[in-house]
Amino acid sequence: MNPDLRKEREGASFDTEKLTNVLDGGAERTRRRKEIEALVTNDPDFKHSDVNFLSRSQRYEVAIRKSALMVMKLREYGIADPDEIYWFKSSAHHGRPEPLDLHLGMFLPTLLTQATQEQQDRFFMPAWNLEIIGTYAQTEMGHGTHLRGLETTATYDPATQEFILNSPTVTSIKWWPGGLGKTSNHAIVLAQLYTQGKCHGLHAFIVPIRQLGTHEPLPGITVGDIGPKFGYDEMDNGYLKMDNFRIPRENMLMKHAKVEPDGTYVKPLNAKLTYGTMVFIRSIIVGDAARSLARACTIAIRYSAVRHQSELKPGEPEPQILDYQTQQYKLFPLLATAYAFHFVGAYMKDTYRRITGNINDGDLSELPELHALSAGLKAFSSWIANAGIEECRMACGGHGYSRCSGLPDIYVNFTPSCTYEGENTVMMLQTARFLVKSYTQVSSGQLVSGMMSYLNDLPGLRIQPQQVAARPTAVHINNPSSLVEAYKLRASRLVEFAAKNLQAELNRRKSKEDAWNRTSVDLVRASEAHCHYVVVKLFTAKLSEIGDPAVRAVLNNLCLLYALCGINKHSGDFLQGGILTDAQIIQVNQRVKELLALIRPNAVALVDSFDFHDNVLGSVLGRYDGNVYENMFEWSKKSPLNKTQVSKYFIPFPKNPEVKL
Amino acid sequence: MNPDLRKEREGASFDTEKLTNVLDGGAERTRRRKEIEALVTNDPDFKHSDVNFLSRSQRYEVAIRKSALMVMKLREYGIADPDEIYWFKSSAHHGRPEPLDLHLGMFLPTLLTQATQEQQDRFFMPAWNLEIIGTYAQTEMGHGTHLRGLETTATYDPATQEFILNSPTVTSIKWWPGGLGKTSNHAIVLAQLYTQGKCHGLHAFIVPIRQLGTHEPLPGITVGDIGPKFGYDEMDNGYLKMDNFRIPRENMLMKHAKVEPDGTYVKPLNAKLTYGTMVFIRSIIVGDAARSLARACTIAIRYSAVRHQSELKPGEPEPQILDYQTQQYKLFPLLATAYAFHFVGAYMKDTYRRITGNINDGDLSELPELHALSAGLKAFSSWIANAGIEECRMACGGHGYSRCSGLPDIYVNFTPSCTYEGENTVMMLQTARFLVKSYTQVSSGQLVSGMMSYLNDLPGLRIQPQQVAARPTAVHINNPSSLVEAYKLRASRLVEFAAKNLQAELNRRKSKEDAWNRTSVDLVRASEAHCHYVVVKLFTAKLSEIGDPAVRAVLNNLCLLYALCGINKHSGDFLQGGILTDAQIIQVNQRVKELLALIRPNAVALVDSFDFHDNVLGSVLGRYDGNVYENMFEWSKKSPLNKTQVSKYFIPFPKNPEVKL
Repeated sequence: MNPDLRKEREGASFDTEKLTNVLDGGAERTRRRKEIEALVTNDPDFKHSDVNFLSRSQRYEVAIRKSALMVMKLREYGIADPDEIYWFKSSAHHGRPEPLDLHLGMFLPTLLTQATQEQQDRFFMPAWNLEIIGTYAQTEMGHGTHLRGLETTATYDPATQEFILNSPTVTSIKWWPGGLGKTSNHAIVLAQLYTQGKCHGLHAFIVPIRQLGTHEPLPGITVGDIGPKFGYDEMDNGYLKMDNFRIPRENMLMKHAKVEPDGTYVKPLNAKLTYGTMVFIRSIIVGDAARSLARACTIAIRYSAVRHQSELKPGEPEPQILDYQTQQYKLFPLLATAYAFHFVGAYMKDTYRRITGNINDGDLSELPELHALSAGLKAFSSWIANAGIEECRMACGGHGYSRCSGLPDIYVNFTPSCTYEGENTVMMLQTARFLVKSYTQVSSGQLVSGMMSYLNDLPGLRIQPQQVAARPTAVHINNPSSLVEAYKLRASRLVEFAAKNLQAELNRRKSKEDAWNRTSVDLVRASEAHCHYVVVKLFTAKLSEIGDPAVRAVLNNLCLLYALCGINKHSGDFLQGGILTDAQIIQVNQRVKELLALIRPNAVALVDSFDFHDNVLGSVLGRYDGNVYENMFEWSKKSPLNKTQVSKYFIPFPKNPEVKL
Repeated sequence: MNPDLRKEREGASFDTEKLTNVLDGGAERTRRRKEIEALVTNDPDFKHSDVNFLSRSQRYEVAIRKSALMVMKLREYGIADPDEIYWFKSSAHHGRPEPLDLHLGMFLPTLLTQATQEQQDRFFMPAWNLEIIGTYAQTEMGHGTHLRGLETTATYDPATQEFILNSPTVTSIKWWPGGLGKTSNHAIVLAQLYTQGKCHGLHAFIVPIRQLGTHEPLPGITVGDIGPKFGYDEMDNGYLKMDNFRIPRENMLMKHAKVEPDGTYVKPLNAKLTYGTMVFIRSIIVGDAARSLARACTIAIRYSAVRHQSELKPGEPEPQILDYQTQQYKLFPLLATAYAFHFVGAYMKDTYRRITGNINDGDLSELPELHALSAGLKAFSSWIANAGIEECRMACGGHGYSRCSGLPDIYVNFTPSCTYEGENTVMMLQTARFLVKSYTQVSSGQLVSGMMSYLNDLPGLRIQPQQVAARPTAVHINNPSSLVEAYKLRASRLVEFAAKNLQAELNRRKSKEDAWNRTSVDLVRASEAHCHYVVVKLFTAKLSEIGDPAVRAVLNNLCLLYALCGINKHSGDFLQGGILTDAQIIQVNQRVKELLALIRPNAVALVDSFDFHDNVLGSVLGRYDGNVYENMFEWSKKSPLNKTQVSKYFIPFPKNPEVKL
């Protein structure tokens, strides 16, 4: 082991294994996770050379081989639990996307939830056996966020009992679906359903796109890869253009809505049911944000413990860069954020499971709030993790820019989370809509519940008059619960500010939409403050669940750091409402610096607790063992550029400028 | 032309050509720039296929071909002015780095400033003719920022009158120099000079590394490419390890320091002279920050004018996304920032030229302040442009993630500016050192001059007692000059805060270094506030130079937006000092929203004024003409993945899990 890292580990004040158990949700789950990961890391079939030296086509080829292998092995081992599949997949694919993601994560689940029994009989087992490989084609070139704007049409022809699928314009070409470019032979296509001369809005259809056996595109289908992206090299995001392409009536997913043989349209019973999937996917993105940021922190903090640079004291050896306050100020708040988001992600997953239980019992009452909350938290966590990964990379100086750090790869594969599955600003505005609605309810004398219940206490709106005199109690900056109150006051003030601005715009203009647009900057800010409050609240709540005092002590410091850094960054919000005084803001600044020094001795142990093995970490710079510089040197020797011939263009360089190169 | 863009252009309130002239520094310079750019764009030799579809080795090959061609053509055309070379180079290389950057930008200039006449005779013309291709090898694997820590040694052997060069450890291997991996046959190597048993610190040596003619590494030299990076695909950043490699005594650059044949060391006259180059390079980075951000804004704003999405009013056609306030709030402050940094970069270049004149006359008095200022502004502008480019990319939604947007490329090629030529945090602390020094001077009754002169007015330190009663005049949020005063007060307060915290730490502890480290977070914040003030001040100063009233009006709005958004973002700083009141912060928020609406009709014209042609813009998404979606579709068809064979791993997928893939 690297001697610097050994020293750091020996100096920790707590048992990393115990914190790992907290993160995993129990010792048994940690054991099982390690067992699953070992199945991959000990399996020579999953070994391969560093993908950084491969072309994109080669990276795709490596990935599809491993994906096919993965599916077979999962069945061989009988692994079917979603978490266990996730662990296996992350290990096999080094945390990167892979070509079967949409098949496994969207195509199969959509069949399960939206296909009739007959359709499941026809498609599910072939899909399960990978004879059918599918994707989910919703987004079009010209249409993402606004689903009603999608242009693809599915027109029912009762004469042949077929749907005729068309991409009527360039903007209607399906664009982006993962696995569409090269891998899939089927797609679930979202299209505007026309029957009996009427449009019934978006519906889902199972569309064969390539010939089974030959994998050639079917007549009427134009399909391919959309080309290189920032990241996602392993993924064949694709395009799909359909020209009068016919599918049987039975290929419309008809568990909910239906088209009868004569073309009669039968409405679905409840449209809200599709909310559930979105909530689930967004809760996964929050978890991914935590995980990606945690990986970046692991690399940057280990490297900062190993890297020695400059001098703090003349004549003494160069200190570890982790000893610089500015380095701590970059990395430790991000470390705290990774922990915070981890607990938020776990909370959302649990809540989703609980509410899904309720939904199955017919109780949809909690769904709208969860839907609104998940939208905002998806945006809040992905934006912050996104910027944080880059901060970690730059905290590694020049070496963070090398692919051997693993950090560029983490960034480019995480960053689409900010724009997919609901563009972040649009998500924030969805949350804002719910906040404004709750505010309006409170204004009209109704109580609201759940995470928005603090709105009940707004002074101007307070329902119980006897509370009007109560001033917010003074904030104690060393007490997480007291900081939760401060965040609550900030959120409540900003929601009120946005709601009042919206009302002022409404009074000034006639159109609701214009007023909304002209307040949207304030509305996004209100949502952010709300989400920030939820994160501080959930992190604080987690502390009381921790049994081990040593683990609780370090998490308490992280939680404080998270909350206080947020105040530092948004001090104007806390000053403006009179939530904190000038003097307190100065205390916060001082306390943050003290916390950095307190966290310093545990920094490496805190990233060790995430327990990423090298496969998932995907970094030469952040590896556990050996000499990081020797590892880098060995890695660089494999650069393909070192193997190519010397260019004819510079030896010998022609002395005569007339010579054409 | 795209009809949406045409409409935007027709709606502009000013003449873009006139603003372009302001940016270029006069109509004649605009004319000449266009002339130079046309030399490249009309030259079939510089045409090539989209590099996004090439492997890194292919991209290097394309780049080195163009670089060699470029050098020949520049000579053919007799282009020698640095700005004109820059224009030609940007057009030929699409704004990307190229393998000869270090040869042209560091090797040749270093010969000119540090080589003796004999050395210039020996090396300059062969280097000018590209028989010798050189790089500048300073950074080592284990050492970047801290130059004294560099480990490479050059030990003088009087017996043979040679220097013996060694890389004694893994960490001492030269790492990162551009053009070293593959292109160069010489390097200027920075090494610790040992002679007569004594170390005399870092000196520069001309080291041949590859055989002229064969380009094979010389015996004793290990050299190669360091492998793939986040970006810089065209650049062969390299490593260099030297084992008892001997060079003649005459290869030490001896214009300033010398080693005589017997080994006697002769000191240089003035060490400050090397400051100049750093100032120059940092002023170029500020200009690059402006330019890269301007490119990203151009793409994002044009795309936002062309992209239609969602609905503002039910039943109406989808609006341009540029009409959404949230989109304006993302993009227009960045547009204003690009303008601000452009003017700051131009100011620094002018100041550098002026001071270089003074230096040649023996007057070094202004150099320390310029050096300190350039360090901070380099960091300030590169951090903000860096984050801003990514904001522009994400403002394009999913399509920003495609390489066809050009945005990933702009980002990955700009982002190293934050860590090279002085890591940004280190830079900020250099500026802070100068600020604290100035503060201390003022405390002891001396006046300071230049950009720091506001410190003379600090209430606690005020030199003229009659001014004590004077309160800062009230800030007018619609007046740029008044906002400059507000920024000045903020900077002055934060400098004082950091200086006092530093003093408190000094009183508490013995070591200066510890106290500095424990205050460094505050010191960086003070530097940022100082730089922010300088930028607002220089932008405001520029307004008065603009003759055309229509141009001045739009720039005035941009300047206001820049200053007010900074207040919005750092409202705590302005509230805490009592610089602005709660009510004013609310007014600022309202005024920012009004300015967004005011700038909206000119947004496209404002990016058109940057006058990037397609070659430099490097974007399908941000192109001037045609249908952006059709362009994207055509582009994607060239994806190499579409040409590769279908993987054997998924058709037909083996039904028997026993089959090994």
